[in-house]
Amino acid sequence: MGQENLSFVLQKPGSVIFEPRPTPTLTDPFSVIVNVKWTGICGSDVHYWVHGAIGQFIVKSPMVLGHESSGVVTEVGSQVKSLKVGDRVAMEPGIPCRRCVRCKDGKYNLCPDMRFAATPPYDGTLCKYYSLPEDFCYKLPENVSLEEGALVEPLSVGVHITRQANVQPGNSVVVFGAGPVGLLCMAVAKSFGATKIVAVDINEERLQFAKKYAATHIVVSQREPAQDAAQRITSDCDLGTGADVVIDASGAEPAIQTSIHVLRVGGTYVQGGMGKADITFPIGAMCAKELNVKGSFRYGGGDYALAVELIATGRVDVKALITGKVKFTEAEKAFAEVKAAKGIKTLIEGVEDSS
Amino acid sequence: MGQENLSFVLQKPGSVIFEPRPTPTLTDPFSVIVNVKWTGICGSDVHYWVHGAIGQFIVKSPMVLGHESSGVVTEVGSQVKSLKVGDRVAMEPGIPCRRCVRCKDGKYNLCPDMRFAATPPYDGTLCKYYSLPEDFCYKLPENVSLEEGALVEPLSVGVHITRQANVQPGNSVVVFGAGPVGLLCMAVAKSFGATKIVAVDINEERLQFAKKYAATHIVVSQREPAQDAAQRITSDCDLGTGADVVIDASGAEPAIQTSIHVLRVGGTYVQGGMGKADITFPIGAMCAKELNVKGSFRYGGGDYALAVELIATGRVDVKALITGKVKFTEAEKAFAEVKAAKGIKTLIEGVEDSS
Amino acid sequence: MGQENLSFVLQKPGSVIFEPRPTPTLTDPFSVIVNVKWTGICGSDVHYWVHGAIGQFIVKSPMVLGHESSGVVTEVGSQVKSLKVGDRVAMEPGIPCRRCVRCKDGKYNLCPDMRFAATPPYDGTLCKYYSLPEDFCYKLPENVSLEEGALVEPLSVGVHITRQANVQPGNSVVVFGAGPVGLLCMAVAKSFGATKIVAVDINEERLQFAKKYAATHIVVSQREPAQDAAQRITSDCDLGTGADVVIDASGAEPAIQTSIHVLRVGGTYVQGGMGKADITFPIGAMCAKELNVKGSFRYGGGDYALAVELIATGRVDVKALITGKVKFTEAEKAFAEVKAAKGIKTLIEGVEDSS
Amino acid sequence: MGQENLSFVLQKPGSVIFEPRPTPTLTDPFSVIVNVKWTGICGSDVHYWVHGAIGQFIVKSPMVLGHESSGVVTEVGSQVKSLKVGDRVAMEPGIPCRRCVRCKDGKYNLCPDMRFAATPPYDGTLCKYYSLPEDFCYKLPENVSLEEGALVEPLSVGVHITRQANVQPGNSVVVFGAGPVGLLCMAVAKSFGATKIVAVDINEERLQFAKKYAATHIVVSQREPAQDAAQRITSDCDLGTGADVVIDASGAEPAIQTSIHVLRVGGTYVQGGMGKADITFPIGAMCAKELNVKGSFRYGGGDYALAVELIATGRVDVKALITGKVKFTEAEKAFAEVKAAKGIKTLIEGVEDSS
Repeated sequence: MGQENLSFVLQKPGSVIFEPRPTPTLTDPFSVIVNVKWTGICGSDVHYWVHGAIGQFIVKSPMVLGHESSGVVTEVGSQVKSLKVGDRVAMEPGIPCRRCVRCKDGKYNLCPDMRFAATPPYDGTLCKYYSLPEDFCYKLPENVSLEEGALVEPLSVGVHITRQANVQPGNSVVVFGAGPVGLLCMAVAKSFGATKIVAVDINEERLQFAKKYAATHIVVSQREPAQDAAQRITSDCDLGTGADVVIDASGAEPAIQTSIHVLRVGGTYVQGGMGKADITFPIGAMCAKELNVKGSFRYGGGDYALAVELIATGRVDVKALITGKVKFTEAEKAFAEVKAAKGIKTLIEGVEDSS
Repeated sequence: MGQENLSFVLQKPGSVIFEPRPTPTLTDPFSVIVNVKWTGICGSDVHYWVHGAIGQFIVKSPMVLGHESSGVVTEVGSQVKSLKVGDRVAMEPGIPCRRCVRCKDGKYNLCPDMRFAATPPYDGTLCKYYSLPEDFCYKLPENVSLEEGALVEPLSVGVHITRQANVQPGNSVVVFGAGPVGLLCMAVAKSFGATKIVAVDINEERLQFAKKYAATHIVVSQREPAQDAAQRITSDCDLGTGADVVIDASGAEPAIQTSIHVLRVGGTYVQGGMGKADITFPIGAMCAKELNVKGSFRYGGGDYALAVELIATGRVDVKALITGKVKFTEAEKAFAEVKAAKGIKTLIEGVEDSS
Repeated sequence: MGQENLSFVLQKPGSVIFEPRPTPTLTDPFSVIVNVKWTGICGSDVHYWVHGAIGQFIVKSPMVLGHESSGVVTEVGSQVKSLKVGDRVAMEPGIPCRRCVRCKDGKYNLCPDMRFAATPPYDGTLCKYYSLPEDFCYKLPENVSLEEGALVEPLSVGVHITRQANVQPGNSVVVFGAGPVGLLCMAVAKSFGATKIVAVDINEERLQFAKKYAATHIVVSQREPAQDAAQRITSDCDLGTGADVVIDASGAEPAIQTSIHVLRVGGTYVQGGMGKADITFPIGAMCAKELNVKGSFRYGGGDYALAVELIATGRVDVKALITGKVKFTEAEKAFAEVKAAKGIKTLIEGVEDSS
Repeated sequence: MGQENLSFVLQKPGSVIFEPRPTPTLTDPFSVIVNVKWTGICGSDVHYWVHGAIGQFIVKSPMVLGHESSGVVTEVGSQVKSLKVGDRVAMEPGIPCRRCVRCKDGKYNLCPDMRFAATPPYDGTLCKYYSLPEDFCYKLPENVSLEEGALVEPLSVGVHITRQANVQPGNSVVVFGAGPVGLLCMAVAKSFGATKIVAVDINEERLQFAKKYAATHIVVSQREPAQDAAQRITSDCDLGTGADVVIDASGAEPAIQTSIHVLRVGGTYVQGGMGKADITFPIGAMCAKELNVKGSFRYGGGDYALAVELIATGRVDVKALITGKVKFTEAEKAFAEVKAAKGIKTLIEGVEDSS
């Protein structure tokens, strides 16, 4: 019994194994056990797989990978009220301390004691059974599939970024980067009432997808000075005195520089993509235009719930982003595909029942 | 008569003259004529005097200097209700169009058609008579002197920066730069309820003044990496996990970099001082800490009125910043003093009546 | 020439005439003359027609009626930049002073010196030619008709109410009253991302329309205590611990009382409909649930522009509300129809060219 | 040992006893045990004492009274980091679930599963030892006494109300009711930068105290129509077009009605005092002036911490409100004094060590 929890474990950079691990048990009356059914892979998972670290987070001992998952509840604690065995849920992978100033101020994503799946030293969700507090499991409505449930995580990233950006109905929003997060930001911005959504990327194929998916305008990036790029985007997309909001989901230095110049006075910029720690930044333009520049880190109060709602009400289509599925035993293949930038989103199926 | 309006005119970089100019007349029923009594000088005035330009604003034809003024009303338009001849007023020097999206959205400081005194091509206030709309003149209460009235302009800059920073009661606020604007930001932050106010500067004498004036802690800048400086400030001033708010009133690249590192997660940074157009900026820390980074540009709705109120109620002492006064005919001396960083604030007296 | 401006004039309660009035001329370089093409009628127009007064606003001398209009520009002032002769525009009927604290603070709808069409003593838009400042005319995109343009006014009322309600994506919103304003609030709330929209009314026919138009749930009002009604709505519409937002577009006392009880803790209520000056109000529940209760008055910065955008992008369908059209010479018929609550929105055509 | 925790217990309305109860033990690693040193009494304590109930909260079994306490830490859980034995603390008496939507959204005061001291069925703090989570104990700085520590609770009520009121620097604030909460609201509003603070009460003695304490203006209530009262306050206190903010700390119907009429357009009203469940309310004025009307319920994220800071930095003087102290064994006397409205704040000393 205790050894039946097959897990996909990163041992050291580049080296993964399938390992039976102890099945988790309920440690407090508010927790549930979830049988993981689908898990998506994102750039940070791949980064750990390849480099064994992201910034100050270093994999020092073997760690289960994965944090974008959905599953079925198999056991509930004695105090659990909102869930029962058999419920299908999206799993929010970061559990805050609930006690610090940030947690009590409604910003639990900034909790310094966050335990986040697949961020060292905490194990991830690429296993058969995973334990979570009840309130970090979001019951999926009947019309939302478990595959879609695995996409709630990246959609929540998009929801958080778009909320940070304070996108208002009628806004023009420029999104740099048409990868999964960028695309989801476009879809969320649209659902928030943005009426002009400009996708900017170097990859024309991605832009064509973006156009069909949520963008109203697309622009191919070129090698050119940031102010020229800004001028070109403004003029090609009829942005008047500039965009109300810019979201960077690329992490690329030229995109960030162009963002600042493409904004109207008083506009808002959100940095969604991670890139270099230090860049050359047009602070003079930021100051004179009195811009709002913000970071966005994971997701917090209400983001997961809204993401589920956006899928359930058909406002955001996450199915369209699923371009591949693999068996649990082929999990490494999914990592390789994301690394190779094949498709948009590859899902890994949960451990088969016979495992 | 038409030639009695003696003015201090910048002809070209470095070259100024005293010139009789036509006295303004009331051009609309909502305007008043003010006999200018005191004018302060700031860094931007000196920049025009020395370089004839600030960024894209270039002095192409002779321009009257000065924009920090107070005076006495000498004539009022037929529709003016709140002012009468003889009233002492602080003069807000930038008149927006009142018609654009920004103006109607409560952000008139971002109006693209702003006519701002002593920003080319608009003449400044270093003259005997100056015309302003009624609603840009703020009647001084009896306990506020005309000298203090001239300080309402820089205090409004500090009010706007501190409002942009969303300083809340109980906040810790670090201010880089202990010149006039930095000092006023400290005093305003204190009046807003900030309980820890840290002044950082390279000049120990300025810091001693800051300590007596409004700061609770002072830190001397050193040549050191930004993260070390942030660590030192945090530890020396007992800032816990970092400052709630940082205001830069220095424009110096190392100060800006240190600012980002000295903030707590979710903290707010406001760029108040102008410096280089592009700098190396720690965007990774900004993103991971989910900071709010903002520009601040001049002042807008309510800033001038609050500045007058802060002086009148004794919450901000602007008198302490006045370190010199010169006659109108010695105006150039005031510019030289500011350029030489002598004292904190030098005021230029209005044109004498016999002039 | 001066007599060609045929107008529909209220002489005293219940008594209207068609009267030729002087055609307006451009009085300042920022104004335009508009040939009015369509005008809608609302409850307040009818109230003036019947009673000659609304509260403190009393018709003391003959006044042209009408304030929901669209038209074609026939003349532009010398400084007008955004419009040219022949442009089709929606006409915002209230011109604020642009100088008071409220105007400069971004709340021009609260300007005490507002000159509002068809609010005594200011003439309305039911005439052939009407003069407006350029920035209160909103150019209609090609895909928006002049008939739709006349609906921009009531849609702006709905936009303002919904903004006051701070409707967020994913919110549940209950709207009391399924008349034109209530219906438009539902549509706007939907475009803002609300996922549950409950219409409550006494009229089942209206509710059926609401269901097809924008509501996700409908509830027929009954005679019952407010807390019972709240309980019934909550349970029938699966609102969990209560609605996030309630908008009252009915002005009815029982609706207002029910609203307070149907809200969740921390929810927001906006009073959109006008009714009795004083009512019995459940202040205890308001306090214990820490509700936000707000008024909504006309519309202000950005509301008209967003209304045009919502129509142009197909997010709000205003055409569906137009249930009748009459010739200018039959204007009184339109008033009678609104009084009789016939249809949803009756439009009055502009004066024919031969008139 | 288990019987040494002497407690002051309400058995039924009007009937209290001193009863030895089991001393609490640490039930989780994040908790501490506090030896209670001082406890203040407020109106709600007295209400339970007299009536055995407040609204839906009914004392069904014997309950320890008291919730405004400070004390000294006598034991800490194994995971407690910020406190050690001997620390002097202010005790926040309401522990939320930390798991619901409100808790995670930064509004834990609205948690439906709140366990609040001396609100049935939860025991209060009038005992020798009380157990609390570490993060609901606020270490008192050296310059804050334990007596002042007991006042942190009512001050937090004032902080929460004033924050709900969004009091801004320069605001005019009218406070109805000059009892403990009203006085503290005045002091907090002042510390937030309000420049005009008007106290309104029927009791002239209280008003004289308010004037010395924090008010800039005082007004004696009279029997008169609400609009007349509003007019009188506006004119006597030179409030121009009305007050920016009104706080009701009286719960009296005429005060609430006057509040709405005394506000300027767009102003904010907060209901701090509890009174009748339903009142006659001027909703027409609320709507036409587009007011913000809010409830305020207890205190939440950051309120206690700010209250401690306001005392520590000398911005709010709570000592001045302490008008009586009694021994623990005389606790009922304190209740009687509050009931008789004797003095402002009576404190009950903790159980003596020999007890």
